[in-house]
Amino acid sequence: MNEQQMIGMHAVLNGALISAAEATVPVTDRAVQYGFSTYESIRVVGGHPVHLSDHLLRLQKSCEGIGLVHPFSSAQIERWVGALIAADAISDATIRIQLYGGDHPMLFILASAMLTYPEQYYRDGVGATTYRGERLIPSCKTGNLLLNYMALADANRRGNFEALLVDRHGHILEGTRSNFFAFRDGVLYTARDGEVLLGITREQVIRAAAKLSIPVVYEAVQVEDLFAGLYDELFISATSMAAMPLSRVDGMSFLGSYRRTLAIKDLVRSWEMGEGQ
Amino acid sequence: MNEQQMIGMHAVLNGALISAAEATVPVTDRAVQYGFSTYESIRVVGGHPVHLSDHLLRLQKSCEGIGLVHPFSSAQIERWVGALIAADAISDATIRIQLYGGDHPMLFILASAMLTYPEQYYRDGVGATTYRGERLIPSCKTGNLLLNYMALADANRRGNFEALLVDRHGHILEGTRSNFFAFRDGVLYTARDGEVLLGITREQVIRAAAKLSIPVVYEAVQVEDLFAGLYDELFISATSMAAMPLSRVDGMSFLGSYRRTLAIKDLVRSWEMGEGQ
Repeated sequence: MNEQQMIGMHAVLNGALISAAEATVPVTDRAVQYGFSTYESIRVVGGHPVHLSDHLLRLQKSCEGIGLVHPFSSAQIERWVGALIAADAISDATIRIQLYGGDHPMLFILASAMLTYPEQYYRDGVGATTYRGERLIPSCKTGNLLLNYMALADANRRGNFEALLVDRHGHILEGTRSNFFAFRDGVLYTARDGEVLLGITREQVIRAAAKLSIPVVYEAVQVEDLFAGLYDELFISATSMAAMPLSRVDGMSFLGSYRRTLAIKDLVRSWEMGEGQ
Repeated sequence: MNEQQMIGMHAVLNGALISAAEATVPVTDRAVQYGFSTYESIRVVGGHPVHLSDHLLRLQKSCEGIGLVHPFSSAQIERWVGALIAADAISDATIRIQLYGGDHPMLFILASAMLTYPEQYYRDGVGATTYRGERLIPSCKTGNLLLNYMALADANRRGNFEALLVDRHGHILEGTRSNFFAFRDGVLYTARDGEVLLGITREQVIRAAAKLSIPVVYEAVQVEDLFAGLYDELFISATSMAAMPLSRVDGMSFLGSYRRTLAIKDLVRSWEMGEGQ
């Protein structure tokens, strides 16, 4: 299937409840053809959309970053998300907000089965490859995703879970759908804010590191330093993953107990329901 | 309107005639979300799709370039284009072939009103701006078009017709929907093959230059050389434009008679019906 399995009967288009089958766009729409769009993926746990206000703030920033003008306020979108959850009595799900620009902006809200991963992935870690390429306007979550698609397809073809994007300077910046973290001498490294997508979960990981007294340095990992063995524990973060340990990169092993990664993951997950702590 | 005005009652999806209104894609389709797609725009003149085999060859190359595997042969697609032209008795139009990848590829063929420009544009020239940014996999015509969208929107906002994309080395490579040419000391310069989209009309322009005994050099124009006045006649080429003179770039004037540009344009247009000459 090309499509994510949708759950429930409904979707939302510009505030109106529509049937899920009606969540389509014309092939002739210019914003669709050009990827002039922004999006967010949100976890819904026990009917509660996790960090929704953070996601809506980032959606606005993505729109501002690419000049996508639309009439929808965060308060409106928040209500519409709530309306979809109520209409289909959603408990656990992944909700996607997909916003197309142009003269007649279209904002869709769609629910699909919650994206989860086997416990084994956390225990044993997952594999990643490296892929050369730079995202356009890295801080914005847009429809300009061909690099991500190709890099991930390449990783999957070679039996890996994620691809790490490496820029022209040899910096590992982020994954195709995740942020990247690496421990070196007890310090946790991650790329600077301007260079990567500002992950909602990345923020939570940094909060968790502080709670665990792990110092964080905002400095991208050089790919040759990684392969020279300077880093001893790696993970990626994303809404669906929290923190997911990497057992290998391009075949180089980083097997371990993932003690620090899993402590961060547990803290991040524990904060999902009560966001204030 | 976000949408191009479609003409006729029909479209084609994977070889089947459908109603034009059915030419939609699910918002949940991963290939749509990621721009994992390729496309072509083809002029139809007097019921004849101009340079169709060249467009279909480029479509295949675009698919190969991004790893988009699909089951459609050029011969099939050519028949389907013919079927759409027959079904709607199309005389003059722009036909778009839009191909989405993934596990279930979707190939749409759509006809819209022929894209034409006022004669005045050719007589007086049109304005362009410069815009910094590099296309991903420049030789492929894909759905990864946010840079093109933003650059053109910026140009339009400032009253210009096209934006010229300038790479990290200060090379003017191409327009957002056109190739770029510039005359210097009687020689016609354009970027090298690997750096830009291999325009079907670009090829015809180069053929026309040969016919007119204009030497062509494959070397991208440095933006500072342009503004230093080293070039004295500029134009862009595209299927819809043939060769369109530029009267200014970022406010610098290149007004003139456009004698050479218009001679090239006339030759390119004269070849549209009988492609063998």
